[in-house]
Amino acid sequence: MTIETLNAGLDTIWVVLTAAMIILMEGGFALLEAGFVRHKNNVNIIMKVFVDITIGALCFYFIGFGLMYGTDLLGMIGTSGFMQRGNLAHLDFSFSLDTFWLFQAAFVIAVISIVSGAVAERINFRAYILYAVLMTAIIYPIGGHWVWGGGWLGDLGMLDFAGSAVIHALGGFAALAAAMFIGPRKGKFTPHGTSTIALPSNLPLASVGAFLLWFGWFGFNAGSTLSATDVKIGHIAVVTMLSAASGGAATLLYTLFRYKRSDASAVINGSLAGLVGITAGCAFVSNDAAIFIGAVAGLLMLFATDWLESRRIDDPVGAFPVHGVSGIWGTIAVGLFSTESGLFYTGNWELLGVQLVGLVVLCVWGFGLTWLGLSLIRLWIPVRSTEEEEEVGLDISYHGVLAAYQDHEFIHYENQYMETDDRKG
Amino acid sequence: MTIETLNAGLDTIWVVLTAAMIILMEGGFALLEAGFVRHKNNVNIIMKVFVDITIGALCFYFIGFGLMYGTDLLGMIGTSGFMQRGNLAHLDFSFSLDTFWLFQAAFVIAVISIVSGAVAERINFRAYILYAVLMTAIIYPIGGHWVWGGGWLGDLGMLDFAGSAVIHALGGFAALAAAMFIGPRKGKFTPHGTSTIALPSNLPLASVGAFLLWFGWFGFNAGSTLSATDVKIGHIAVVTMLSAASGGAATLLYTLFRYKRSDASAVINGSLAGLVGITAGCAFVSNDAAIFIGAVAGLLMLFATDWLESRRIDDPVGAFPVHGVSGIWGTIAVGLFSTESGLFYTGNWELLGVQLVGLVVLCVWGFGLTWLGLSLIRLWIPVRSTEEEEEVGLDISYHGVLAAYQDHEFIHYENQYMETDDRKG
Amino acid sequence: MTIETLNAGLDTIWVVLTAAMIILMEGGFALLEAGFVRHKNNVNIIMKVFVDITIGALCFYFIGFGLMYGTDLLGMIGTSGFMQRGNLAHLDFSFSLDTFWLFQAAFVIAVISIVSGAVAERINFRAYILYAVLMTAIIYPIGGHWVWGGGWLGDLGMLDFAGSAVIHALGGFAALAAAMFIGPRKGKFTPHGTSTIALPSNLPLASVGAFLLWFGWFGFNAGSTLSATDVKIGHIAVVTMLSAASGGAATLLYTLFRYKRSDASAVINGSLAGLVGITAGCAFVSNDAAIFIGAVAGLLMLFATDWLESRRIDDPVGAFPVHGVSGIWGTIAVGLFSTESGLFYTGNWELLGVQLVGLVVLCVWGFGLTWLGLSLIRLWIPVRSTEEEEEVGLDISYHGVLAAYQDHEFIHYENQYMETDDRKG
Repeated sequence: MTIETLNAGLDTIWVVLTAAMIILMEGGFALLEAGFVRHKNNVNIIMKVFVDITIGALCFYFIGFGLMYGTDLLGMIGTSGFMQRGNLAHLDFSFSLDTFWLFQAAFVIAVISIVSGAVAERINFRAYILYAVLMTAIIYPIGGHWVWGGGWLGDLGMLDFAGSAVIHALGGFAALAAAMFIGPRKGKFTPHGTSTIALPSNLPLASVGAFLLWFGWFGFNAGSTLSATDVKIGHIAVVTMLSAASGGAATLLYTLFRYKRSDASAVINGSLAGLVGITAGCAFVSNDAAIFIGAVAGLLMLFATDWLESRRIDDPVGAFPVHGVSGIWGTIAVGLFSTESGLFYTGNWELLGVQLVGLVVLCVWGFGLTWLGLSLIRLWIPVRSTEEEEEVGLDISYHGVLAAYQDHEFIHYENQYMETDDRKG
Repeated sequence: MTIETLNAGLDTIWVVLTAAMIILMEGGFALLEAGFVRHKNNVNIIMKVFVDITIGALCFYFIGFGLMYGTDLLGMIGTSGFMQRGNLAHLDFSFSLDTFWLFQAAFVIAVISIVSGAVAERINFRAYILYAVLMTAIIYPIGGHWVWGGGWLGDLGMLDFAGSAVIHALGGFAALAAAMFIGPRKGKFTPHGTSTIALPSNLPLASVGAFLLWFGWFGFNAGSTLSATDVKIGHIAVVTMLSAASGGAATLLYTLFRYKRSDASAVINGSLAGLVGITAGCAFVSNDAAIFIGAVAGLLMLFATDWLESRRIDDPVGAFPVHGVSGIWGTIAVGLFSTESGLFYTGNWELLGVQLVGLVVLCVWGFGLTWLGLSLIRLWIPVRSTEEEEEVGLDISYHGVLAAYQDHEFIHYENQYMETDDRKG
Repeated sequence: MTIETLNAGLDTIWVVLTAAMIILMEGGFALLEAGFVRHKNNVNIIMKVFVDITIGALCFYFIGFGLMYGTDLLGMIGTSGFMQRGNLAHLDFSFSLDTFWLFQAAFVIAVISIVSGAVAERINFRAYILYAVLMTAIIYPIGGHWVWGGGWLGDLGMLDFAGSAVIHALGGFAALAAAMFIGPRKGKFTPHGTSTIALPSNLPLASVGAFLLWFGWFGFNAGSTLSATDVKIGHIAVVTMLSAASGGAATLLYTLFRYKRSDASAVINGSLAGLVGITAGCAFVSNDAAIFIGAVAGLLMLFATDWLESRRIDDPVGAFPVHGVSGIWGTIAVGLFSTESGLFYTGNWELLGVQLVGLVVLCVWGFGLTWLGLSLIRLWIPVRSTEEEEEVGLDISYHGVLAAYQDHEFIHYENQYMETDDRKG
């Protein structure tokens, strides 16, 4: 046993375990989103997450990984590594290359899952599958290449440790584009200008989701070191916790004092906003800064939610406020609070400027390519559910179940959507 | 600090963490099964999993482990190690022997949990406890000894890295035997030959289960190296992911094009079939083969489900299609795709032959001993619930709860099964 | 790469991963408690856990950690380390000091979560926030200092490896005090002396919680080594599993034979009691002793539950029986079964005596300070919900949701608590 073998083993299990934690976050996304939407669409939104984790992972294997991490061409795109083949000599890890693929695959399915929430309850399921292919094979990988794959934004010096910008801002703006492209749910905004709310169908289920996400985020941020001997690991985990706690506490107290009621959805999303907000800076900022970043992320999420309502944009689970807005804030916060090169520590505006350039590029890329992609898909099949599909619910329309929660006895095959043997309760 | 100490520590935390992940799979089994069966039996099926994880673990401590991993007698049976006592010098790890017990205990409770699903909604709870004792103390340990404990199948050269055969095929055929022995649920098959379906009672809950299982499977497969410096760990995790994704994607697309609806239960079980299918070969096959293995596993699961229906065998959660059929396929796939000795890579039929021999032996063993065991138990107590117990539901019959989901205020002790104070909603 | 660097990396990932597992236990607490209480209070109890994990973690950052682990003053209190500042030279780890904070923060939010269950369904939400501040900033940190932070109980030789006394007995007695201070839920005990029961609203959800807790407990106990090369890690995990299995099996069989029905809540709480019972002794006792300890813990939990009923003390989720009583038993069990210094192995009563002294001190401290704290809070705001708040449910009263589980279409803002657009199902 040599010290190199041990080190390779240590790094490998670190990456594998943290990748598994991130993949469990898909369960978190699925349940959070299912809990937030109406009963009749609970199964559909979970199935969308299954699209992400199955088809999305395969697309990233066949195409996306190569575009993101293959041999760089002009700072714009990767050109090798499709199906883990071709020259990848520039990637040098103590663990096998496909282990690196696994970790990155866990990231890409998180990105597409962000969008899945924003289009909840009204997207055509087949159109979603096509869009998921586009996102995991092309949109995210190219944007990610620019920052992490040897591309031009990384060369400029942009800092985004675990993806406030690459994952969350890009994903959040893609979510915004998709929500706007598809339009609000039927009945969400009334003709005479008032707005309505769809209460979460199952808040305990959403909470399961939130706790799984919180757990997985330790893998997301600390695992991004890709090395178990990185001295920053402990600190990364600590600031992740502090920012999440701060985001949740800020929304809990704000809604308590402003509305006399601590709003459950807000607290859940506030904690998640804290997690998103610290994702870029977790390796660069202090504990105290993390508390500030988290609190601001939580409050910005609340304001962004109200702004969306006022603009009559329908984002059923708050994907844009949580991921888009906090992703922007987190990326900017690195420019402000990085202890090595942030404005508040060095008086130097350079990093902040680079962060802003990168943000604009990634947000425009996520928004624009999503709009373009959905436009192309619409040439072929409808992007939006029909009125009738939406009315009866996407669970029945696309997945052939009467409802996510059943209280029936047996049902005859020949008319399973019509009548039941025996209705109870 | 010496390099040996470090290595021992590294291996220990690897085995402990992956064992914990496998034990969490019990939560996955419980919720998956509860979500798939009818409301009135939700608690019962979870309690059966509690039987597995509590009584099953203890039986494996007192008896099973010794039979499986004790000093070998004639290639047939282990003879030491009961209660971690006796000569176990042939087991040589960098970590303590009871740590090895923990990892193996996590496996045995998975095996019995496979059976728990197939007998859902109609097995007598006491009979199930007795059967669980039999399985965890004797049936699985002896079968497992033959392959993993120094027995004759392992000597023949059978390859089953993490248990497609030992865990899933054996468990799946035991499940089939139990389902056939007990007979279908009342009302499942009508006298005039038509079949009915029982819709899943809670698909979101089943999905929680699926995600927990997926997460735990990384521990199941990669942890089976029992050494953190095994260079295959990363690759094992990668093929686990690819096969699961492929199994889920195959069923998602197949049901979408065949039935115009992506069936949620099918996608969940398809992903699990992909996981089962890769469990034998995860250390031996390539990424591309894993994608193929997973897709075939998913589709075979669908066909096996239809076959069971046509044979009027009632397996409420699909335990046999998911574990039995995919377990067989996964074990055969090693004989075909093993990069070192598989038919497609070497042209040599030897490994494939050994795999088939092993499969037949383990499936017959699992099926036969289960049938025998249940026959013996029936001499003493009824194996099947009474008609009345089944009608009112096993939750009330065996666990004294009105229903898994309550919406009552307080209830008086003296007549808790009769009336309620105050019914709401 | 030096061997010291590797060791530091190994220890760091061990502590980070186990801390993440413990933090996931908050999800376990939330769901367990939500599943045990009535529908109308499901969200509220989850929100209380969010108070714990957000505000509690921050209080421990600003104040609690310093009192617990700062430079010792007279064996009574820590005096540095607030916000991770000041002299902490006495703490010497291979990982960063804030990583140690993270692990300890995971512990403190577990303590306050114990209390959250006992006061379920009737505590004023604002009063709970204030109490949570008190517990996480002062009560637990000072009690913990005495045993783990260099204080007088540790100097006496008290052994409490992962907290049967410091976490569970202290937390359980705090829970008892809070339950008594606030009084029983309206309708729980009838005027003419009979008692009623509130059936768990969602046992499957409670089971998710139990499995998450079981998983996290491996992090809780084994992670408490704070060093990945501690040779006891494997054994700690093994006895944790055995004691949990034994506690669950004992209650499962006891309720089966005594009441003819295996009670689901009892089995869940029995497993948890087994986990609590082994928490003090996991590094000190044998496998066989662990099985005994777990079984006794499970049965004591049952008897304590009956005792509380007979005393007309209302503890809706069994926080005192599970944590308080098993915590006491587990701490005493170290004095009996410690293979190095326990009474049954050495004939020496000394350790047992020290354990008893420590227990009395910590239980009185937890009970007394909680009573005092709630008395002070009551001078400012009501500690108990109003009758009306309790009647309509705390979800509506404090969190503005109609119910945890919704089956509505859209609702107009202006009268969201009054009427709905469209009621289904």
